[in-house]
Amino acid sequence: MSPADRVPDVVIGRIPLYLRTLSQFQAQGIRITSSKELAAVLGTSADQIRKDLSHFGGFGKQGTGYHISYLVGQLKRILHADREWEVALVGAGSLGSALLNCKEINRRGFAIVAAFDRDPTRIGSQAGGVTIQDGRHIEDEIGLRNIKLAILAVPGPAAQQVADTLVASGIRGILNYSGLALRVPEEVMVQDMDPAAHLQRMTYYLG
Amino acid sequence: MSPADRVPDVVIGRIPLYLRTLSQFQAQGIRITSSKELAAVLGTSADQIRKDLSHFGGFGKQGTGYHISYLVGQLKRILHADREWEVALVGAGSLGSALLNCKEINRRGFAIVAAFDRDPTRIGSQAGGVTIQDGRHIEDEIGLRNIKLAILAVPGPAAQQVADTLVASGIRGILNYSGLALRVPEEVMVQDMDPAAHLQRMTYYLG
Repeated sequence: MSPADRVPDVVIGRIPLYLRTLSQFQAQGIRITSSKELAAVLGTSADQIRKDLSHFGGFGKQGTGYHISYLVGQLKRILHADREWEVALVGAGSLGSALLNCKEINRRGFAIVAAFDRDPTRIGSQAGGVTIQDGRHIEDEIGLRNIKLAILAVPGPAAQQVADTLVASGIRGILNYSGLALRVPEEVMVQDMDPAAHLQRMTYYLG
Repeated sequence: MSPADRVPDVVIGRIPLYLRTLSQFQAQGIRITSSKELAAVLGTSADQIRKDLSHFGGFGKQGTGYHISYLVGQLKRILHADREWEVALVGAGSLGSALLNCKEINRRGFAIVAAFDRDPTRIGSQAGGVTIQDGRHIEDEIGLRNIKLAILAVPGPAAQQVADTLVASGIRGILNYSGLALRVPEEVMVQDMDPAAHLQRMTYYLG
């Protein structure tokens, strides 16, 4: 695909939210929806939704709405969410443990199959059905299992070093809870889960 | 300000990340930086950073770089991060407790001063220096203290009802960990902290 054909990343970022809302509708027994209805729930415009979806072809006819189960299937296929992804977690403190026990992540296609910590009191203990391993085994375990996604839930100061190890192990995408900006090679993606940054995005408007 | 003068929200979303990285530089004893250096850490382009900052006036001269302490002060002022914001938290399960104990949130200007749960075994207990209160007191407490920001850390099914209560209490910004798309009035902001959605944004590129 040439760069000109690429779907903008900001559009890709919205597709999981469309999928999430459509799945909610589906769980409520709703079978058909419209871009207008979706927009109302998502706090966006019907135009935006239609434009975003048009990058991937047409999913509904003007005036007849979207068949939810079809659209859910297509969006899952687009996001590669039609399979289960194995995920490694580093940092099994209170936040890491909460994530290990989070059923929602699993329900949406992600299995945390390996977890690591360097605290000896945590190593060997169980959380979310996984045994916490010594952080020294990160490279071996991730390489062996060919895991491509990692959740980084260690405190700030240690984060960059762990990120380097994850990248060396073959990780291609990091969900970063460390609150630290990570330096990674261009081919590795980072998504920041930073509550302070997201709160500041709102206080801008509240001053 | 007329809508034409408004800084795009996508730009606002990047300012906290610039502030975060600049504060890291500052903590490392660095006094001057450049858009190029910032861009390398942030995985973006120097052009983008210069363009984003130009919305708020000039912060550095071509060729001389940015004085970090000055720029940090200005960005804090822009984001209203030059004061401490009180925050209410609803849902003191494992994730909520981890957030209550998160020093990073506090260090960056947010004080969780009230926490609520509906589980009787949690009500009255302490976490992060706050006593968990009965969820029935949300409206009274938030109204009385005039709190404008809330963290929603309850499981999906209960989230919309709690969000309605928060909005009725005067909350203007919600950091949403529920994994549910919330319906809120136009004047209320929601920032989604949804690990599955952020993982899917990366699996799109990994298929």
